[in-house]
Amino acid sequence: MSVPAGDHRSFYRDRRVMITGGLGFIGSTLARQLVDLGARVLIVDSLIPDYGGNLFNIHGIEDRVHVNIADVRQQSTMNYLVREQDVIFNLAGQVSHIDSMEDPVTDLEINCKSQLFILEACRRYNAGTKVVYAGTRQVYGRPDLLPVTEQHLVKPIDVNGINKAAGEYYHLMYNDVFGVRACSLRLTNVFGPRHLIKHNRQGFIAWFIRLAIEDREIQIYGDGSQLRDFVFVEDAADAFLRAGASDLSNGQVFNVGGTAPIAHRDLVELLITVAGTGRFRFVEWPPEKKAIDIGDFYADSSRIARTLGWKPTTTLREGFERTIPYYRTHMNHYVTAAESPVTL
Amino acid sequence: MSVPAGDHRSFYRDRRVMITGGLGFIGSTLARQLVDLGARVLIVDSLIPDYGGNLFNIHGIEDRVHVNIADVRQQSTMNYLVREQDVIFNLAGQVSHIDSMEDPVTDLEINCKSQLFILEACRRYNAGTKVVYAGTRQVYGRPDLLPVTEQHLVKPIDVNGINKAAGEYYHLMYNDVFGVRACSLRLTNVFGPRHLIKHNRQGFIAWFIRLAIEDREIQIYGDGSQLRDFVFVEDAADAFLRAGASDLSNGQVFNVGGTAPIAHRDLVELLITVAGTGRFRFVEWPPEKKAIDIGDFYADSSRIARTLGWKPTTTLREGFERTIPYYRTHMNHYVTAAESPVTL
Repeated sequence: MSVPAGDHRSFYRDRRVMITGGLGFIGSTLARQLVDLGARVLIVDSLIPDYGGNLFNIHGIEDRVHVNIADVRQQSTMNYLVREQDVIFNLAGQVSHIDSMEDPVTDLEINCKSQLFILEACRRYNAGTKVVYAGTRQVYGRPDLLPVTEQHLVKPIDVNGINKAAGEYYHLMYNDVFGVRACSLRLTNVFGPRHLIKHNRQGFIAWFIRLAIEDREIQIYGDGSQLRDFVFVEDAADAFLRAGASDLSNGQVFNVGGTAPIAHRDLVELLITVAGTGRFRFVEWPPEKKAIDIGDFYADSSRIARTLGWKPTTTLREGFERTIPYYRTHMNHYVTAAESPVTL
Repeated sequence: MSVPAGDHRSFYRDRRVMITGGLGFIGSTLARQLVDLGARVLIVDSLIPDYGGNLFNIHGIEDRVHVNIADVRQQSTMNYLVREQDVIFNLAGQVSHIDSMEDPVTDLEINCKSQLFILEACRRYNAGTKVVYAGTRQVYGRPDLLPVTEQHLVKPIDVNGINKAAGEYYHLMYNDVFGVRACSLRLTNVFGPRHLIKHNRQGFIAWFIRLAIEDREIQIYGDGSQLRDFVFVEDAADAFLRAGASDLSNGQVFNVGGTAPIAHRDLVELLITVAGTGRFRFVEWPPEKKAIDIGDFYADSSRIARTLGWKPTTTLREGFERTIPYYRTHMNHYVTAAESPVTL
């Protein structure tokens, strides 16, 4: 099934592809690209309220995908759904760090146990499939050295990071031991249209975008000097396509980072400039957030560039220029009237 | 509660100490040392058949410990038991790598989820306690460099190793974020009296000892050149005592390795020499074992030496000289008549 890197898009014609978390932010973006490439797309999503799944995310492609509402925690359902899939993009997850610290067991059920369910299902019912796992930079914890390469120690500092690390290790192990081809993409901060913005517990970037659009105040913790890199969601989706199409990715982890690191305060200034609305203020770090903050972080993505030919192509400014009009047009599908605009 | 390293034994006088997995191999050895130091010992063990718990392991100290049969998977039970404990030695676990590959979900329930239960119980009902976790060298996977220090990448290669890594990360995170003091001891191959020997799915060393005693053939995989280090169980227990008594261990991981690495074939020759019985033969690697074999491994234990003053003091030969007579005298408590001697 391996193809030259340049051909990764044609690989998907008529392929059966399953996307767990396929109604979410990255999953739905991937689904949109896949239907254009001629893939037969099965979207699996639990649509748990407060999680990232949103039926509007597949608006316009509803007739070209199959949607199966299911929870990855249901083992027998997974046993059935994985059959005959050529590629499984495995993006279902609990993604809130804050929630994981309040309810660590739910995070474990979704991010560890369900990953075993999916991989066991593949091992027993579809060992020939390929699984691409949505990993996270969070597995590195506070970086020892920047930029962070895949050789950096895995030392997550919150429950979500620990469970995502375990989920990733399972994938690599099933590749190495059971021959279920699998790899992991360690995503940095992904941004773009179709992200959850109805609450602020799934990362700050989408929340900042909402605040700017609503002409509200963005609070920057500390002096805003901390560095991050941001990757536009369509670039991230392209990394999944490349990883799914090539056997060079098997058993590997890859950083998937943005074009260049930027300080929080510069990010916010750029966002407000592009939006033409919003304002910001520096505030003290809330202690519960400081406790799981990781300081500066940006990734070295040269391994995936070298191996799969992937590079981010969308700058932060270009990404904002495409994201802000999207939400301005479709805000009612992401924030209900009762929720907007309220101060959380 | 911190004390000078030299005083770690007197620290335990009248302390309330809980040992999960306390009827097991290391747990019961620790219990025996603790009662001699005047501690008030609560042993918690599930006595799951085929696991390491064995009531005979506390023979002679039954009247000086409190035994509570319970499973760490029962959250409400853990919530109750952790209260008022000064130190918790957390050794309950599923320890068979082979079993973890056949039934990964049970391994996850015990080695991940239950660890969250125990730590959440501490966070909510006894945040002042100290938890010492029984970690494992298995989190390192196949070593990149020898001897392996604590800076080595965590990259486990089987389900058990992954779940033990997650369990360890939870402990460190609860230390850093929730202030539940905790640390982890990454044990290499521990050997000595009171180890499970009724089957061969919990590590090879105890099984080899049984085979030698029963004058049976020991099979050495490949050419037997692979190196390991071995730590005598009483030395390992002393590492737990030191880690539990000192706040210098908080938030840390420590390798707990043996006196010197030795090749499998030399280990087996020494064992047969000391036993005066047994024989060996070189055989091909069984593929399912080769897949999760890690090659040479030995640990650098200088961090725990430097921080807590711990060093292994028992050589492999001395350890065998104490272990073999123990099993010869008490074999009937470790192997039932129906099981001995059968070829598995």
